[in-house]
Formats: sequence, structure tokens, C-alpha cells
Amino acid sequence: MDLLALYDADHPSRTVRELTDATGLAKSTVVRLVHTLEQSGLLWSRGDGRTVPGPSLLRWADLARFTWQLPEAALVRMKELSEASDGEAVHLYVRQQRARICIARHEGTRTLRHVVRVGEEMPLWSGAASHILLSRAERPDIDAIAAQAPHPDWAETLWERSRRAAVQGWSASHGEREAGVSGVAAPVFDRDGHLVAAIALGGPTTRFTDEAVATFAAALVATARDLTALDCIGGPTR
Amino acid sequence: MDLLALYDADHPSRTVRELTDATGLAKSTVVRLVHTLEQSGLLWSRGDGRTVPGPSLLRWADLARFTWQLPEAALVRMKELSEASDGEAVHLYVRQQRARICIARHEGTRTLRHVVRVGEEMPLWSGAASHILLSRAERPDIDAIAAQAPHPDWAETLWERSRRAAVQGWSASHGEREAGVSGVAAPVFDRDGHLVAAIALGGPTTRFTDEAVATFAAALVATARDLTALDCIGGPTR
Repeated sequence: MDLLALYDADHPSRTVRELTDATGLAKSTVVRLVHTLEQSGLLWSRGDGRTVPGPSLLRWADLARFTWQLPEAALVRMKELSEASDGEAVHLYVRQQRARICIARHEGTRTLRHVVRVGEEMPLWSGAASHILLSRAERPDIDAIAAQAPHPDWAETLWERSRRAAVQGWSASHGEREAGVSGVAAPVFDRDGHLVAAIALGGPTTRFTDEAVATFAAALVATARDLTALDCIGGPTR
Repeated sequence: MDLLALYDADHPSRTVRELTDATGLAKSTVVRLVHTLEQSGLLWSRGDGRTVPGPSLLRWADLARFTWQLPEAALVRMKELSEASDGEAVHLYVRQQRARICIARHEGTRTLRHVVRVGEEMPLWSGAASHILLSRAERPDIDAIAAQAPHPDWAETLWERSRRAAVQGWSASHGEREAGVSGVAAPVFDRDGHLVAAIALGGPTTRFTDEAVATFAAALVATARDLTALDCIGGPTR
């Protein structure tokens, strides 16, 4: 999986040599992994000795779209949220083990904007969206996640911020992962009241003043409520 | 991977019980596999006890599209090929181990049509596209693939048909896998002359008369030559 992550728009194809250099693994290990990935269709060998992401991914692409594509009404609400925040970027995250994954976004219109691609994995130890996704997590879970953070004693901080998120129904963060980057987020639930996602506005801290955060929080909570009513996270049969 | 294949439009979410029933595996094995797939983001547990294809697939979906999406010019040629064949379905296949995978298609306009979805895996022991994809294969390779066929002594047949495909530059098949289904195919090469794909017309045998096959073959060879010139199979940097 980590090997597949080395393929992107800048590196659409790779040689064994490139994979060896990028991973630091022994050549024999890379050759074996590439062979296994080829067997399962996740990598494909071109005639020129380079490998590319395999055609079997096409089937999975359909599956992913089918499961995670939001209905038009939800995308419209995300666009409206961006407009209500004067063009900040909107991202929708779900928890995936000890990370959060962006499942939808509206890029916003600002020149300086917070960009996270759909499918991108972000750390769960930082950011307003993480506070929300962890707002019902138990302490040992929080401790394990906080252990990934580069900050000392982060468990206590993450615990407090996720508890506060649970109480106030939204959360804000400033520079937890990257200095100068802020976020505000609110929870989305399924029809049975399970927490399923966090909707977030993100941008430069300079634009996320206390006043702006208060406005953003109100808009986020309203959008989160609408997404909850649409009950559309994780597949059409919800 | 076989577990993931159980999720589709008719089964967007699954319980462990359903997976156990569908695979015939022991419940403990299914629980372990589901856990592993969740760890890697390929499955995602909803709050209601059902699992869905995971959000990590979204990133792979991008990767697959990026690598395999054909340029507009290639799609136009496939559409023109369908029109030239009076509306038969056009499919483009690449070899993936001992199978062929459809990487692009034009559905055609006939009511009775040959339907293979993008990303779908088809057997390599049957069909005109397989003869083409195996036209440069060695005998042991052919023998291993023919062993998957439900027909006796298929290796000799597959060997002969793939040799003939190599010589005449196209191939036709009638009812090899399914009675009443025919196909005609031609080879697509990369700029270095490596065989990379087979372009095929498929439909009911009743419409694939000798006369029609001759017309289809000429149109396919012309289209295959154009796709070869576009050099667009398996990524934009080819």
C-alpha cells in the first residue's frame, strides 16, 4: 500500500530502482512486493520496464465512487458553506483507523487556500476535524493517536479539545499541525445518531479571527445538520 | 481482494454474516480479513455494523483514472469504430496476469449488445481479444492459461488461434466462452512496438457473419493503428 502511494501525477510510472530509492527497502524486497502487487492487479508492467498503477484499480474506482460520491444536495450545501465563509475551503472527513480521510471537498475561491484532495489521508492527532471525529473516543484511543504527534504531552491536549468539541458541538484549531493554518469543524451523524464524519472549514490563521470563527461555527453546525438529515455518508443505503 | 469483489451496486454494504455465507469461509477467518482490510482503509465500518468499500479507495480511484483514462481522441476513434460496425460494442483490453481487463469501452447502440464494464476481468483463455493479447506469448504461458478453460485439449486450440492472430494481424472468435457470442479483435502497440492492448468488437454470433467479420477486421485494424499512434495505454508519459 505504501508502495502504491509513491505513484501520483508527478510520478505516473516507476522503475524498481526509483521504488528502491524512494522506500529505502532492499532491491530484492521491492522486486517481491512489485511482483505481489502485479499478481493482484494493483500494479501493471509496461513494455518499457516501468510499472504503473494497475487496471484492477479501475473496478475499485467504481466501487469507491459508488460508495462515497455524495448526492448533489450535499455538494450544494458544501458550496453554500464555502460562500457563507467568504470563500474558505470546505472538507468532509471520516475517521479511518488512526487517520482521517477527506471524502469530499469544495475548494473555495481564495487565492491562499487550504487544499486537501479527496482520498487524502490527514493525521488524526491534529486539527478541528480530528477533535470532532474523536469527540466520542475513549481515553486509550486518544492516547494511542496522540502518541503520533510531534508535541510532548499531546494526549492531555487532544483529550481536552475532543471533550470540549463534544460539549460545544463544534471545534476550532490554530496551527496544531502547521503554523498559520486554522480550521473549524462540526459533526455529521447517521440516522441512528452515530458520529460518521466531520465537516470543516480551513484556511490561514490570519483570516480565522475569533469573530470569523464564531460565524464559521454557526454556519458549519447548520450545514452539518443538513448533511445529517441527508444521511449520505458511506453509501446509498444508509 | 476476493472479499472486496463481493461489494457492488446490488450489495453496497455487507455484514460479516453475509461475507461468511458468500465466501464459505469460517466466521473467524472473515472477521480477521475484514479487520486487515479495515486497517488498510479498503473496508470501512459504518455505525450500523455493516462494512462498505473504504475511503482509501478514493485515492486509488484518482490514480486509476489518471493512469488509464484515454485521451479524447482515442475515445472518439472507439465511437467511430462502433458506428462503422453498425453499432456493435467496442472494448479495449490489457493483459493482467492470466486474465484480461477492460480499460475502456464504447457501449454501442444495439438492443442486444455485448456488455463488459470498465475494470471488469475476463478470462484470457477465450475470445478474439485473448488471441491477440497472447499472439506473442510462449507455449508454456499458453498452456498455463489454457488449463483454466473448461474445454479438453484447449492448449493446442489457443496456441493455434494466437499464432494465426499474430500472422494475420487480427482474430475472430465464435462461442469460445459463451455460445452465441462472437468477437473480432486487433492489436495495439506502444511506441517501442510492444504489444499493450487489444481492441475488440463483440456481439451476437448471428450478426458476426463471415462478411461482417471481414468488414469489422478492416475497421479494427485501422482503429488499432490510430490508437498505436496515440501511444496512450497505461499512462500519460508513454
